[in-house]
Amino acid sequence: MKFELKHTDKGSKARAGSVTTAHGVIETPIFMPVGTAGTVKAVHQRELINDVKAQIILGNTYHLYLRPGLPVIEKAGGLHKFINWDRPILTDSGGYQVYSLSANRKIKEEGVKFKSHIDGSTHFFSPENAIDIQRSIGADIIMAFDECTPYPCDYKYAKKSMEMTHRWLKRCCDRFDSTEPKYGYEQTFFPIIQGSTYKDLRKASAEVIASFNREGNAIGGLSVGEPAEEMYSMTELVCEILPVEKPRYLMGVGTPVNILECIALGIDMFDCVMPTRNARNGMLFTSEGIINIRNEKWKEDFSAVDPNGSAFVDEYYTKAYLRHLNHSQEILGAQIATIHNLRFYLWLVEEARKHIIEGTFADWKNGMVKKLGTKL
Amino acid sequence: MKFELKHTDKGSKARAGSVTTAHGVIETPIFMPVGTAGTVKAVHQRELINDVKAQIILGNTYHLYLRPGLPVIEKAGGLHKFINWDRPILTDSGGYQVYSLSANRKIKEEGVKFKSHIDGSTHFFSPENAIDIQRSIGADIIMAFDECTPYPCDYKYAKKSMEMTHRWLKRCCDRFDSTEPKYGYEQTFFPIIQGSTYKDLRKASAEVIASFNREGNAIGGLSVGEPAEEMYSMTELVCEILPVEKPRYLMGVGTPVNILECIALGIDMFDCVMPTRNARNGMLFTSEGIINIRNEKWKEDFSAVDPNGSAFVDEYYTKAYLRHLNHSQEILGAQIATIHNLRFYLWLVEEARKHIIEGTFADWKNGMVKKLGTKL
Repeated sequence: MKFELKHTDKGSKARAGSVTTAHGVIETPIFMPVGTAGTVKAVHQRELINDVKAQIILGNTYHLYLRPGLPVIEKAGGLHKFINWDRPILTDSGGYQVYSLSANRKIKEEGVKFKSHIDGSTHFFSPENAIDIQRSIGADIIMAFDECTPYPCDYKYAKKSMEMTHRWLKRCCDRFDSTEPKYGYEQTFFPIIQGSTYKDLRKASAEVIASFNREGNAIGGLSVGEPAEEMYSMTELVCEILPVEKPRYLMGVGTPVNILECIALGIDMFDCVMPTRNARNGMLFTSEGIINIRNEKWKEDFSAVDPNGSAFVDEYYTKAYLRHLNHSQEILGAQIATIHNLRFYLWLVEEARKHIIEGTFADWKNGMVKKLGTKL
Repeated sequence: MKFELKHTDKGSKARAGSVTTAHGVIETPIFMPVGTAGTVKAVHQRELINDVKAQIILGNTYHLYLRPGLPVIEKAGGLHKFINWDRPILTDSGGYQVYSLSANRKIKEEGVKFKSHIDGSTHFFSPENAIDIQRSIGADIIMAFDECTPYPCDYKYAKKSMEMTHRWLKRCCDRFDSTEPKYGYEQTFFPIIQGSTYKDLRKASAEVIASFNREGNAIGGLSVGEPAEEMYSMTELVCEILPVEKPRYLMGVGTPVNILECIALGIDMFDCVMPTRNARNGMLFTSEGIINIRNEKWKEDFSAVDPNGSAFVDEYYTKAYLRHLNHSQEILGAQIATIHNLRFYLWLVEEARKHIIEGTFADWKNGMVKKLGTKL
């Protein structure tokens, strides 16, 4: 993997760059649509390419490991082939879902024992097998196995957990460095900073993670319920420590405003279920603010879904029609809103990149932030 | 509306023709995908055009009347504009759903009082307002308000019901002929033959319906649970009575085999929820037979969804991937299977038409029928 830093904003710490992987180039800052179980929900792969213009998507190790399971993915020749997606893929390590979805999880130094949320069967994730599983999935960028602490989290637990995450990181690196990719193309490994919302812990974690000198670095344990100001302050703090010449990935973030604010702090990569999950509930993100398409006010509004939008659905369908589909729980409603929201997120980071390169990012960002949170 | 009969098969009663409507030409025999509530479930309109190659779709008056309701559809300028579909649309009269979906329906000579399956509110459909509602929806082809008898149905009830359907037909025609289209383009009205599975009733009904001399004729009350042989025998009987120079629409039929057999009996138009509904349950219709994608046998089958298929999904995705999506209840699974099945149905009628024109229909049909029902 190669990261090239192309421009740094004068008025902020925003950066424009590019990440080159075995499956192509990602222009940063970038938003990565979440393809949980090998599909970005309600969107065809060709729509991700042609309409959303996604450059990289995420897969969730926990979900893919449980279903379809590694034997199927391996026999397909990896996740790219299984789902017919030849652009870059990033997988998380499975840790986050183990904590949030599975029942009866037991976290020990060795790893985490958990029960499948699908059938209750017992499984075990460790730093070592989280790497092995991600080798089998075959993502271009694979993530460290960490513990993601909840919010709020008491200092003692946060410190203890962070220290274990650091010890796990060493084991992840050892495993990654002593194994080969399974499908003939290079994979890259990113470690993850933890430390909850404690400045000293975040600082310590960022230093440890930076010292591993991997090809990119990630920030975990944020966007778990803490106030946005806490998220920004932790992000700012660790970005000052992380090396400039490597991409920075803020995991699980966030709203359009969160993304712009964190680009301004020096983040290069984002992922979040918000544009896809909220789409299925009728929430549309637009450049003028947020639409809840379920509201009565759209019932007879025959204007385009988003006249300023750049997805085909934005002009093709009307708000009244989308509201009808949502009220009738029609699948097409989820399809339209998902394409809209994902294209909007991708447009947002494309615009951010353009403004960083043109040297106008800070002003543009401040103007956008005022509008993006407005309820329409 | 103009119907042109272009070819009649030598070895059967199959016909190839074309129906010209205000929204374009339909080449018959044709299958019409069902777009219940203003959407063919899980398919974008542009996919219906580019991938499925649908020439006409169906709307359900009962569903559209309840939601979004006529004021919304009228303000949109009719259903075509509301859903952004500028090819032909046919609407049923609402009767079938009143009988199958709504609670506490009361059928009287005047019409049918029923409760909405959505919110329990009380509504009334009559021959007159079924026409008015279809004028408001603005379909190119609108259907008579009839009573669709269940199967089995005792002779006495079937006869009484059929006679009421005939009286209702007169009221429908009077209303249709004394009202104007609402959106400036022509609408056409089709009456419906009833009579359950009784030959004398079907014969009588076909004669009455033919005597109304409308621009097309429909056969209702079949595909409601009777054996296929009964369906074919009733269809054959009425096709002998219906005028040759007008299109014949067999409502709610059916499997690929049903469709080919009924084309051979002289039917020109079909609709059925089977390709769309069964797709969402993992059943795929192919030229070699039927696939239940949920089956274990497809788990590691990385061959194309349908190597003989003509939809993009057939080559783009594998059986193993589609099985995974179906097992994971992913929306994309419904999207893929629906496009596949609809394209297959459209391919089937396109091939039938080609063979009718080439004079090879009967042999081709007999060969296909042997394969289509095979469980793969």
